[in-house]
Amino acid sequence: MTSFALTPETTVHRIPKRASYDRAVVHAILDEALVAHVGIVQDGQPFVLPVAFVRVDDCLYVHGAAASRLMNALAKGTPACVTVTLLDGLVLAKSAFHHSMNYRSVVVLGEARLVTDAEEKARAFDALVERMEAGRSGKARPPTPKELAATKLLAIPMVQVSAKSRAGGPVDDPEDAAWPCWSGHVPLGISAGERVTFGSGR
Amino acid sequence: MTSFALTPETTVHRIPKRASYDRAVVHAILDEALVAHVGIVQDGQPFVLPVAFVRVDDCLYVHGAAASRLMNALAKGTPACVTVTLLDGLVLAKSAFHHSMNYRSVVVLGEARLVTDAEEKARAFDALVERMEAGRSGKARPPTPKELAATKLLAIPMVQVSAKSRAGGPVDDPEDAAWPCWSGHVPLGISAGERVTFGSGR
Repeated sequence: MTSFALTPETTVHRIPKRASYDRAVVHAILDEALVAHVGIVQDGQPFVLPVAFVRVDDCLYVHGAAASRLMNALAKGTPACVTVTLLDGLVLAKSAFHHSMNYRSVVVLGEARLVTDAEEKARAFDALVERMEAGRSGKARPPTPKELAATKLLAIPMVQVSAKSRAGGPVDDPEDAAWPCWSGHVPLGISAGERVTFGSGR
Repeated sequence: MTSFALTPETTVHRIPKRASYDRAVVHAILDEALVAHVGIVQDGQPFVLPVAFVRVDDCLYVHGAAASRLMNALAKGTPACVTVTLLDGLVLAKSAFHHSMNYRSVVVLGEARLVTDAEEKARAFDALVERMEAGRSGKARPPTPKELAATKLLAIPMVQVSAKSRAGGPVDDPEDAAWPCWSGHVPLGISAGERVTFGSGR
């Protein structure tokens, strides 16, 4: 299957030409991002929190302290929404109205499953470390049973999935062509600075 | 008032030393970010969507097409959560367990108010354009009445507000000090590439 099936909840209504349900498109966005925003509901109030995550096959993994409210709510199978956004740039138009941003985002709806299987847990934690630096899961000191017990791992199956994106320049109105103001695209991306080493014991 | 009042919903329980309710801290995070993640609930299902936003005083403004489902839900005063996250870096530890990320985030809970006042609307749209490039609101072609009518502007008052952040290097366990694996901080930040100009009519 190369595409995710559309559901009423995942069908993009607003500018549907910007939507994609293609598995490769979705995977590429998820694999480039480092942070996801997870939404849950408690007593009718939505809460949205940033988390580290990783994709393995068609599954998103998030983890947190075993005592965390978010992790406990997810572990109980509360309806969740995991949204991942990559900001690709600013779209500066001739008119205030046509200003926009270029982005790629993925929305995954579903219920999380608490991962208890030791092998799946080890694989997901390796993937989380690997995501931060390729090759690192074989170098870092592996988790102890006590550390594993202190961490909850949640799997969110990628079943209800959609992607949305915008690319390219501004769509200026023809009558604005001569307006004396530059229009175009300012690309934005995440870049890494120089590594910082701290003294021992830190 | 230099701090936001704590409420049961905004009090950070997990690692409370990382929390702040200080107005200056909150404002600085919001003013550096370009994208917010807005959470709402529909039929018990949370939806989290990325939006452009701007802060003016103690108010967050988000805007979107008048026909957008998110904008319409917000306009009806549905409970919302606006979360803003700045990723500051990767924290690579000696042990897999102590890997982390440095970040600054703000969570605002509340109900949005549809902005209909022409002056407030003009000021917020100026601020949104200004956020993308300083000085631009005086240069871009101002919105027409038709364009203003096609756009919904929502104000989310900053009453229930909290910030959370992590900074610094990894907290390696003393017994891992000799583990043969570099540990430290990889700073991450958003940087702009070279501006792209498109042909006229684009």
